[in-house]
Amino acid sequence: MKIISIVSGGLDSVSMLYIQAKYKHNIHVLSFDYGQRHKKELDFARSAAYNVGGMWDCVDLSGLTRLIGGSSLTDNIPVPDGHYAQENMKITVVPNRNAIMLSIAYGVAVAEQADAVAIAVHAGDHFIYPDCRPAFTEAFEKMQDKAIEGFGNVQLLTPFIKYSKSDIVKEGQTAGTPFSKTWSCYKGGDVHCGTCGTCVERKEAFQLAGVQDPTIYLR
Amino acid sequence: MKIISIVSGGLDSVSMLYIQAKYKHNIHVLSFDYGQRHKKELDFARSAAYNVGGMWDCVDLSGLTRLIGGSSLTDNIPVPDGHYAQENMKITVVPNRNAIMLSIAYGVAVAEQADAVAIAVHAGDHFIYPDCRPAFTEAFEKMQDKAIEGFGNVQLLTPFIKYSKSDIVKEGQTAGTPFSKTWSCYKGGDVHCGTCGTCVERKEAFQLAGVQDPTIYLR
Repeated sequence: MKIISIVSGGLDSVSMLYIQAKYKHNIHVLSFDYGQRHKKELDFARSAAYNVGGMWDCVDLSGLTRLIGGSSLTDNIPVPDGHYAQENMKITVVPNRNAIMLSIAYGVAVAEQADAVAIAVHAGDHFIYPDCRPAFTEAFEKMQDKAIEGFGNVQLLTPFIKYSKSDIVKEGQTAGTPFSKTWSCYKGGDVHCGTCGTCVERKEAFQLAGVQDPTIYLR
Repeated sequence: MKIISIVSGGLDSVSMLYIQAKYKHNIHVLSFDYGQRHKKELDFARSAAYNVGGMWDCVDLSGLTRLIGGSSLTDNIPVPDGHYAQENMKITVVPNRNAIMLSIAYGVAVAEQADAVAIAVHAGDHFIYPDCRPAFTEAFEKMQDKAIEGFGNVQLLTPFIKYSKSDIVKEGQTAGTPFSKTWSCYKGGDVHCGTCGTCVERKEAFQLAGVQDPTIYLR
């Protein structure tokens, strides 16, 4: 099976990649530069792709930043501290990001006659991000069936859509994911800050999973 | 009403823009550089936006060419001559182009709190391009409703989806579209070639509409 896998370099998508590799799928990894301040995640994505023997490409969407800005992930707005599933995390939303990344991944899938596109959205994302919910991914797959009719058959894989992040840590560990080589922190410093929403969520996931957390946190 | 309008610089999208301008809408024009050989269409898009008092931005997707190539619109494959609605025109398809452009336009619409995204697909496109059919645009709008739930209400406008190209010429003329300042030819030479699919279709549309064609054709 040939899969176009969207991998940010974070814990979730790198775990997804290692699980796919375990099943010997032919994987083309796509990462996206959308002007995020935590751009160092892209290095983690590239090395993960390399380690599982997949192709890797980074799609440069940095020109979009000026147009779809207004998010603390890309602009000069401070990244909020606190729990990921809080209302103030809405400021970290990049408008329509998943639809944009998925539609590009589908274009690549048609060009390469791949069987599937994969994205690592999970249940913990649902509260804040509408484009991580099953209603979105199901509607997206239906839309794509119409968009590429006669040019290919591409499934949308969302293996973690009903998983919590601690479920992902457990599954990722079984597949041998090198967690220390994944990046979550939205601030993009030398080490994980330990206080932004995604760091808090990461710490919690390891605790709940009962898996040792190899991450170095500033706090 | 604020509209994000996708305008290539061709006859269809520039006519759509002039009709929107007639109704005094606030328009932000988006064009896309996807490495097309007929890149000169972008100059026509920019000047059309300027002439109707709209904002204009070009989204640089040229980095995608290498990934979603295989189309004669972007690669070193010759542009086929003949009628637009023929089977050999399939070679001019850029995989998933409309889904990619529309999802980016929706991202801009959310960022700018716009009311609508508009695209000038028309009935003559349906035979070859699945992503120009009503089944696609309807599924796309449904998907977007899910993707941006809680962040905006954005309609998808497809004013020409049941129009033939000659209908567009008629409507465009009524709105004062300067047809000589629109570009259709896929070959991107100094003047329209007159023999590629889109030139043949353009000539035919003026004839059927009974409107004088101001285009200079090589043949």
